[in-house]
Amino acid sequence: MTHVTQHPLDEALQLQPLDIEGHYAGSPHAAYGNMVGPFGGATAAQMLQAVLQHPARLGEPVALTVNFAAGVKDAPFRIEAHPARTNRSTQHWTVTLLQAEDDGSESTVITATAVTAVRRTTWGAQDLAVPKVPAANEVARSTGASMVRWIERYEMRPLAGTIPSQWDGAESDSLSRLWVRDDPPRPLDFASLTALSDVFFPRVWLRRARMTPIGTVSMTVYFHASSAELAEVGDGYLLAQARSQAFFNGFFDQSAELWSEAGRLLATTHQVVYYKE
Amino acid sequence: MTHVTQHPLDEALQLQPLDIEGHYAGSPHAAYGNMVGPFGGATAAQMLQAVLQHPARLGEPVALTVNFAAGVKDAPFRIEAHPARTNRSTQHWTVTLLQAEDDGSESTVITATAVTAVRRTTWGAQDLAVPKVPAANEVARSTGASMVRWIERYEMRPLAGTIPSQWDGAESDSLSRLWVRDDPPRPLDFASLTALSDVFFPRVWLRRARMTPIGTVSMTVYFHASSAELAEVGDGYLLAQARSQAFFNGFFDQSAELWSEAGRLLATTHQVVYYKE
Repeated sequence: MTHVTQHPLDEALQLQPLDIEGHYAGSPHAAYGNMVGPFGGATAAQMLQAVLQHPARLGEPVALTVNFAAGVKDAPFRIEAHPARTNRSTQHWTVTLLQAEDDGSESTVITATAVTAVRRTTWGAQDLAVPKVPAANEVARSTGASMVRWIERYEMRPLAGTIPSQWDGAESDSLSRLWVRDDPPRPLDFASLTALSDVFFPRVWLRRARMTPIGTVSMTVYFHASSAELAEVGDGYLLAQARSQAFFNGFFDQSAELWSEAGRLLATTHQVVYYKE
Repeated sequence: MTHVTQHPLDEALQLQPLDIEGHYAGSPHAAYGNMVGPFGGATAAQMLQAVLQHPARLGEPVALTVNFAAGVKDAPFRIEAHPARTNRSTQHWTVTLLQAEDDGSESTVITATAVTAVRRTTWGAQDLAVPKVPAANEVARSTGASMVRWIERYEMRPLAGTIPSQWDGAESDSLSRLWVRDDPPRPLDFASLTALSDVFFPRVWLRRARMTPIGTVSMTVYFHASSAELAEVGDGYLLAQARSQAFFNGFFDQSAELWSEAGRLLATTHQVVYYKE
């Protein structure tokens, strides 16, 4: 007998269709556990997966916005994906994740919107210069005990802006740069690229060399590739970088980019993050 | 008798409460007319306005995502704003704009999500350097006939990346920079800042010195100020800049920033835009 082991992300993406079209049952995956609840990137990937699995889907993802309205509990959830508008070549989605409360009622935990489109071949250009960095295999992998499970799901080879070794309050810039891929390696697709878009540790920790409670509030991903381009990447590394532009009274922004090893910009992604102090 | 003339944006923001809480009647404003339908920034401001007007609103806007699912017609619409989740200090909103079809049915034209929050005073920093530019009053206002009404609603003083004078297909970078404020001048608030976030002409036109049909598909605004900081700006100019990072098979992204004259970063904003060829 052959025992086939599925990748933990693919296990997480196993959404079970319910009686109503576009409604799915799922749950956080322990392999993507965070301090409390699951890694937001894995949850964002599950939100997109509900769109990808929907029988009425038209085209491929162009944009995704995920709003983390409350902490996802380590408990089953339902995702409802709804095609709010279907045009000739684009489709607009609303997606909601709900979980049961202790009293048996259900609450909205995440809201999301997505745009899918049937792309046509057009003129194109990539204007964001790829940072000059050493090749992935020339950069040491970060090691050491991680505080949370999901960190083990990524092979990270830091190039700049590593997590502070001393929490001494020394201010610095907020730029991080790293080579990264799934661990175990897994062929890149829209779901894994979505999860990878949230792979950066909190910018405010780097900026201040100080830990403060944080939580992503809203996250947007723009996809600059079709499934063919993602398939070309295979299980290769992505060059990923992120930085913040403003920290103001409890919320900071983060803008990030993900390129393939071949230098193709696959996604640009932005988020706004709560920080306590 | 005194005749009080209201600012066109304030006229556009007059949403009439309907029988159901959070449902409002409104319409595009002719003063913000675009080639077809209204200027997207004005529509985005109306979507936010439905949240701002909602009796259950908690706090002030932190993030807004508006998805332009179809062209808004120059006809009445209904906006439905719904607080999907209310926490102690944050609130997550879903907002929908609907218009009647010719057959009398109603269709979703725009979907949106917003996050509002009661901000607490925390450590803060602004990391994005303000570009060094001449003062607004030292820069000539752009003049000449505009193709569309909404352009007249903004006093624009271009600094870099002006709309091509020759459509000769000469490629250039996609950066535009300008001083801009409402015309007539109007004290800045969240609604007008939202509209201003969409004030840039299409990056692909600048990038290629070539006109092609375009349409914003999804737009996100992150607010880095409270109403107090916006009030300080009054009807002063904003320094605004925008550029693209990738153009791929029918969709390009745009990232932009808006600072006050005093150099405060008020908003960062991102969008993904359809282009035909």
